[in-house]
Amino acid sequence: MFTGYLTAIRNKSPLVHNITNYVTVNDCANILLAIGASPIMADDKNEAAEITSISNALVINIGTLNERTIESMILAGRKANELNIPVILDPVGAGASKFRTETAYRLLETIKFCVIRGNLSEIKALNSGSCSTKGVDASNNDQINESTLESIIEFAKSFSKKVDCIAAITGAMDIISNGVENYTIYNGNSHMSKITGTGCMLTSLIGGFCGANPEKLMDATVNAVCAMGICGEQALEKMIAENSGTASLKVHLIDCISKLNEDQLKAGAKIEFQ
Amino acid sequence: MFTGYLTAIRNKSPLVHNITNYVTVNDCANILLAIGASPIMADDKNEAAEITSISNALVINIGTLNERTIESMILAGRKANELNIPVILDPVGAGASKFRTETAYRLLETIKFCVIRGNLSEIKALNSGSCSTKGVDASNNDQINESTLESIIEFAKSFSKKVDCIAAITGAMDIISNGVENYTIYNGNSHMSKITGTGCMLTSLIGGFCGANPEKLMDATVNAVCAMGICGEQALEKMIAENSGTASLKVHLIDCISKLNEDQLKAGAKIEFQ
Amino acid sequence: MFTGYLTAIRNKSPLVHNITNYVTVNDCANILLAIGASPIMADDKNEAAEITSISNALVINIGTLNERTIESMILAGRKANELNIPVILDPVGAGASKFRTETAYRLLETIKFCVIRGNLSEIKALNSGSCSTKGVDASNNDQINESTLESIIEFAKSFSKKVDCIAAITGAMDIISNGVENYTIYNGNSHMSKITGTGCMLTSLIGGFCGANPEKLMDATVNAVCAMGICGEQALEKMIAENSGTASLKVHLIDCISKLNEDQLKAGAKIEFQ
Repeated sequence: MFTGYLTAIRNKSPLVHNITNYVTVNDCANILLAIGASPIMADDKNEAAEITSISNALVINIGTLNERTIESMILAGRKANELNIPVILDPVGAGASKFRTETAYRLLETIKFCVIRGNLSEIKALNSGSCSTKGVDASNNDQINESTLESIIEFAKSFSKKVDCIAAITGAMDIISNGVENYTIYNGNSHMSKITGTGCMLTSLIGGFCGANPEKLMDATVNAVCAMGICGEQALEKMIAENSGTASLKVHLIDCISKLNEDQLKAGAKIEFQ
Repeated sequence: MFTGYLTAIRNKSPLVHNITNYVTVNDCANILLAIGASPIMADDKNEAAEITSISNALVINIGTLNERTIESMILAGRKANELNIPVILDPVGAGASKFRTETAYRLLETIKFCVIRGNLSEIKALNSGSCSTKGVDASNNDQINESTLESIIEFAKSFSKKVDCIAAITGAMDIISNGVENYTIYNGNSHMSKITGTGCMLTSLIGGFCGANPEKLMDATVNAVCAMGICGEQALEKMIAENSGTASLKVHLIDCISKLNEDQLKAGAKIEFQ
Repeated sequence: MFTGYLTAIRNKSPLVHNITNYVTVNDCANILLAIGASPIMADDKNEAAEITSISNALVINIGTLNERTIESMILAGRKANELNIPVILDPVGAGASKFRTETAYRLLETIKFCVIRGNLSEIKALNSGSCSTKGVDASNNDQINESTLESIIEFAKSFSKKVDCIAAITGAMDIISNGVENYTIYNGNSHMSKITGTGCMLTSLIGGFCGANPEKLMDATVNAVCAMGICGEQALEKMIAENSGTASLKVHLIDCISKLNEDQLKAGAKIEFQ
């Protein structure tokens, strides 16, 4: 499961086109460079499709959605579909406003995604139109824990089948389902939610792994989620050892991604197959 | 003065809606998470008011003002006023261009703010339309020091009465006035001006403190200003000890905010009541 | 060559107006503050020219080009030309899309630049309209090394004459030409390409050096390129010593810029005159 995927990124340096938010865009670019991919950010409708056409993956993130870039997302997404380039969606804050929920729906209808990554509130909003997110974080009712795990796996499975795409629902535990296979990943820690953009960065990482491994999108997604979680653990250890704080945690996280190797992935992954 | 305010943020995790600039937006999000609040950035007119309506505070920052977001600011501000949600203004660069000064005026006329935080040049521009700022920094004639302090306190007081809102004028010393009570805060240091966004971050922090303590906006503002100054002192100490530089100073600043407690606030605050 | 230029920035604190991309804008602001300049970011057409008119230099960067800001770039550039304020262009990703290449051409036709800084692929695209960039990085065919150096110097020279402006082509080696004098700079290292925005930051630094030394633009450009390369070397040394990673490399880079002095510049510069 963990052999060859990271190496493929380092060898191919896939170009990952991100149409994303301006809050975490710098971190997304840096984490893509750290893992070995090559980021490009371009969101004007005059070039979005053309930039996608030279890319190995397209990541669409609605974190600071605005009217101007929706058209670019659709043009880029259609071009990616036409050329069989993997498209990954991060429905940031879906459920927090009608505009975000409706736009996320519209994207789902227009574009064929290969992976959707979000917290449980966001994925629920995509599934049903229910609005239970608290801003961009999962609401308190939407936590993934031992007692809710089984039902959330079922939900991920049915959502994945419905939208015909890999669902990556991330939180205290991460659930990845393609409708048939399901993985639960126990890496990471709650301190990562004290950094803005860990979700966005993970989605961009998924773009990097999928771009370099387009024939094995499920494994690529699992690799990305484990990579983020393992590096989050390494970063927290360092933060605690030096008694620093959350800004240092972010620096360590990207540092660890830049030094990650497949041995660490294999040894560190806490993963269950259902 | 320093009991309960920080604890309230950590307990309530107030949602703070920021309509802000793309230069420092990531730092604003991270410092809000570090203090214990929950940031959301949303600036499209299709969702601005709706996002405000689920938030505990609204922060409007005109740092990279553009036509598209002015309407969003007004829609969000009006909604906040309707729902009695505190609105904080950061008039970045007011006085540097007619567009910024006029927009700041327009916002003042349209929205009832609870706190306005800026440097002396910006607040003077808001008061009189005079244009003496040097870009986004206070001009050399607008420094707060021992000899100018008294007159600036008087100015803060009269400005506060005029706009019916708490004035927080920050610089080498920080002056906070609600027109009746006045505080001078001596925390912080000049190195903080070597990091972009310390002003923006402070304004977002004020949003966090006000969002969690809506009944005591004056004390909340004082807490935020002291928190920033004290953490700036801690960060500088660490920067000097390790002989690093200004990028490390920013990392340490947010680190310190993430570890701040009320004992440190009480022990560290250098504050005078006038 | 290295006497007085950095000191001039520290003494004059030139205001540098950046119309730039939202990926690396925070780093550009922080590196300008670190070197001793004062950054201002403003890209709305209602204020762009006015902000330029109070500035000492204008930096135009097309990294996340969009329709809204092109007009601002042109208004600001024309105002700068009118007032003899140096204008620096960073044609990020020129060649990667028709939109970027054509806009870069349009800017070249409309505005008189004093320095253009880009990688070899970008400058080739500006020269001939050839599209060989790989996203925002130089393509593999466009690397600067011992065997290609001489021909690239000739290219820089002829490009510089053609566009009547200093050409700074940066990569493994950096070539600066004003059509008559040519410098090759050997500072820096390949790890810097693992941080997003080293190119953008360098272009902003050139803006700072030119803004403080408007009578000696060629020397100012050489100083900026050497400063970036030397600090990149210092930062890498520190990263290796502490066994950290690429996010730490960025922090160290800006730290080193904030502590740079002219003695370090003189001792560290690896420069050849042709």
